[in-house]
Amino acid sequence: MAHRIADATVTVRDAEGAPLADAPVVVAQTAHRFLFGCIGFDLIDLANREGGAAQDDQRPAEELLAEERLADQWLGLFNAVTLPFYWGHFEPERGRPDTARMLRAARWFADRGCVVKGHPLAWHSECADWLLDLPTDEVADVLDARIRRDVADFAGVIDTWDAINEVVIMPVFDKVPNAMTPLCRERGRIPTVRLAFDAARQANPAATLLLNDFDMSTAFECLIEGCLEAGIQIDAIGLQSHMHQGAWGEERTLEVLDRFGRYGLPLHLTETTILSGDLMPAHLDDLNDHQVDHWPSTPEGEERQAQEVASHYRTLLSHPSVESATYWGLSDAGMWLGAPGGLVRADGTPKPAYDALHGLVKGEWWHEPRTLRTDAHGRVAVRGFLGEYSITAGHGSAALTLDRAGAVDAEVRLG
Amino acid sequence: MAHRIADATVTVRDAEGAPLADAPVVVAQTAHRFLFGCIGFDLIDLANREGGAAQDDQRPAEELLAEERLADQWLGLFNAVTLPFYWGHFEPERGRPDTARMLRAARWFADRGCVVKGHPLAWHSECADWLLDLPTDEVADVLDARIRRDVADFAGVIDTWDAINEVVIMPVFDKVPNAMTPLCRERGRIPTVRLAFDAARQANPAATLLLNDFDMSTAFECLIEGCLEAGIQIDAIGLQSHMHQGAWGEERTLEVLDRFGRYGLPLHLTETTILSGDLMPAHLDDLNDHQVDHWPSTPEGEERQAQEVASHYRTLLSHPSVESATYWGLSDAGMWLGAPGGLVRADGTPKPAYDALHGLVKGEWWHEPRTLRTDAHGRVAVRGFLGEYSITAGHGSAALTLDRAGAVDAEVRLG
Repeated sequence: MAHRIADATVTVRDAEGAPLADAPVVVAQTAHRFLFGCIGFDLIDLANREGGAAQDDQRPAEELLAEERLADQWLGLFNAVTLPFYWGHFEPERGRPDTARMLRAARWFADRGCVVKGHPLAWHSECADWLLDLPTDEVADVLDARIRRDVADFAGVIDTWDAINEVVIMPVFDKVPNAMTPLCRERGRIPTVRLAFDAARQANPAATLLLNDFDMSTAFECLIEGCLEAGIQIDAIGLQSHMHQGAWGEERTLEVLDRFGRYGLPLHLTETTILSGDLMPAHLDDLNDHQVDHWPSTPEGEERQAQEVASHYRTLLSHPSVESATYWGLSDAGMWLGAPGGLVRADGTPKPAYDALHGLVKGEWWHEPRTLRTDAHGRVAVRGFLGEYSITAGHGSAALTLDRAGAVDAEVRLG
Repeated sequence: MAHRIADATVTVRDAEGAPLADAPVVVAQTAHRFLFGCIGFDLIDLANREGGAAQDDQRPAEELLAEERLADQWLGLFNAVTLPFYWGHFEPERGRPDTARMLRAARWFADRGCVVKGHPLAWHSECADWLLDLPTDEVADVLDARIRRDVADFAGVIDTWDAINEVVIMPVFDKVPNAMTPLCRERGRIPTVRLAFDAARQANPAATLLLNDFDMSTAFECLIEGCLEAGIQIDAIGLQSHMHQGAWGEERTLEVLDRFGRYGLPLHLTETTILSGDLMPAHLDDLNDHQVDHWPSTPEGEERQAQEVASHYRTLLSHPSVESATYWGLSDAGMWLGAPGGLVRADGTPKPAYDALHGLVKGEWWHEPRTLRTDAHGRVAVRGFLGEYSITAGHGSAALTLDRAGAVDAEVRLG
């Protein structure tokens, strides 16, 4: 973990600039640099309500209360959110994108200190059906325009995007008719990746753009190497990690991180699911093929999940390439495939995994407010995970950013 | 099959150029354009003996006779040979390559009308151990030099090469220490492919260079697309097809051919094995992991193999992209992994699969010598598989090449 921890010697100065010698100061972490993310799909309605949307939410009061409780649990743990931009849902009717509603949701999260990511700008699944009538060249043009429009509309609020999703399988995907598969098959994977990255980059040069995939095999390596050789600037590699067939465990996780970390690019674990119930049979190649009526969270499953979640996050943070880990759904309610993969039960009570992860993110890896004493030169030693800190003395306070691991010198002036 | 068959109207002229009207001519196919290949590893000794090598073969007479019988069976069926250039065997001691012996073998096959291929110029397996002591940059230089040397030494006799083999797995291969894996991991797959192709291309600009792999998944697609985007000229895609775990069948074979055929490049099925005994368990990922003491060919297995071989070759020839199909070993004796994958038993007797394939290559798909009669304008209709033909009348004869399918006009002058 040494690569995540700063050993800072901070010189604290008063408002006039003089060292604040031999005085008590309260040092508290206010944010993690590491991105502990989660999807925020379930909080879009609440964010719109609280964000001042004129909509009238007619649902029963207990549902709204449950949503608020979920929001509290969400904000108590995470600092990064993934919001849905599946084309078929975001723009079900050509020319009428869901921009206003999604922008309110994105701002709600950003106002609460979250890094907001949009997922995904291009994908063969959940694609808009109205594209099916168009010739391939027009699909490319419309895709290009949609990416430019959405990336520009959200710039400054959403500056991180899954530019394109699951390209390894895209040209051979045959489960659902869609317009992206023929485009990618006809033009090739790399030109399709280039289309998405170029459009997004030009619309928001400051954006962090990911190439995201579930395929952890050599296929994704080959795709990444091809894109890099072709000069496409990938800002981070997105590794899905839906573990419906069993947690990877430390060895496999490190093997994956080493293989994909060797390109020198940041790794984002973009879609993590770890179950607290029965596992999906190992022989299924496509997780979507597992359809069950009822898939309960079980007490034994919840204990196993708690250990696996904690172990998985420890492994991720132990690897220097990993910058982000997004969990794929806080609550079992409404989870993908009906799987018990949430950290909170459908009834809103936290599972042991929630507490385990919270115990790391806001416990073991978190610098609680602590009163320290400066030395004769106004210096205080702050050791903690990279991120944002506040230093308070009397009526003055200052913000401190620790963004480099190891021994560092810093200085703050109380204001 | 229409894409393999010419419907030629051939005007036959006598030595003076006058149409040979209303006369009997014998039309016979002398060679297939399609490459029906096989490895020739077992015939290198015989080729050297017959090729005038000064070596003294001390083996018992019956062994030498068995070899001659195998050579007859081999030449009775195949018109393309793959010879071994595994670096560790070809140059076990640095600077002492097995050039003279292999050149005699290559010439022996070429003299008998075979297209000769070298396999492979770069591969992580069977690699030279003396490379293990060298730093990566030197490995690259030595690899470059070995490719240039061998491709130049054999140019004109061997003009087809597996430039590099199994690159999909190359950088993550961890079963046997070798010098290629670190090179490929450090530099990336595409630069490694480029190194091999550039060296071979420069040493023999007329060579047909293959990118060969056993991985039929999207990984190999991604690698190919990356190489093509990077501007590497791949002359043919090499698809291994060792079917130790069961024949692919028509559906899967066509699916593979369609996926890899979509790049518009010729497909060479480079390494085909179909068993006449027990199948290898399906759960094994690496065929090398299956080690058995005794793996017999069985009567039922031989019947199955005969049907599967015939069906497989029919499927291959039905696909317009396929230019070549190489069987991975004529005899069970000395076969890779000890598998009963030969078309001939270890005792030298042909299996039903040999007869089945022979019945296609030199039967159903072959134009036996046939007496036809020219019309009043000296024209005769020749319908047959693309390849070489002879036309004979009286004391005169002429060679005819049919290299375009469908209705074609041709002309020969008897000499």
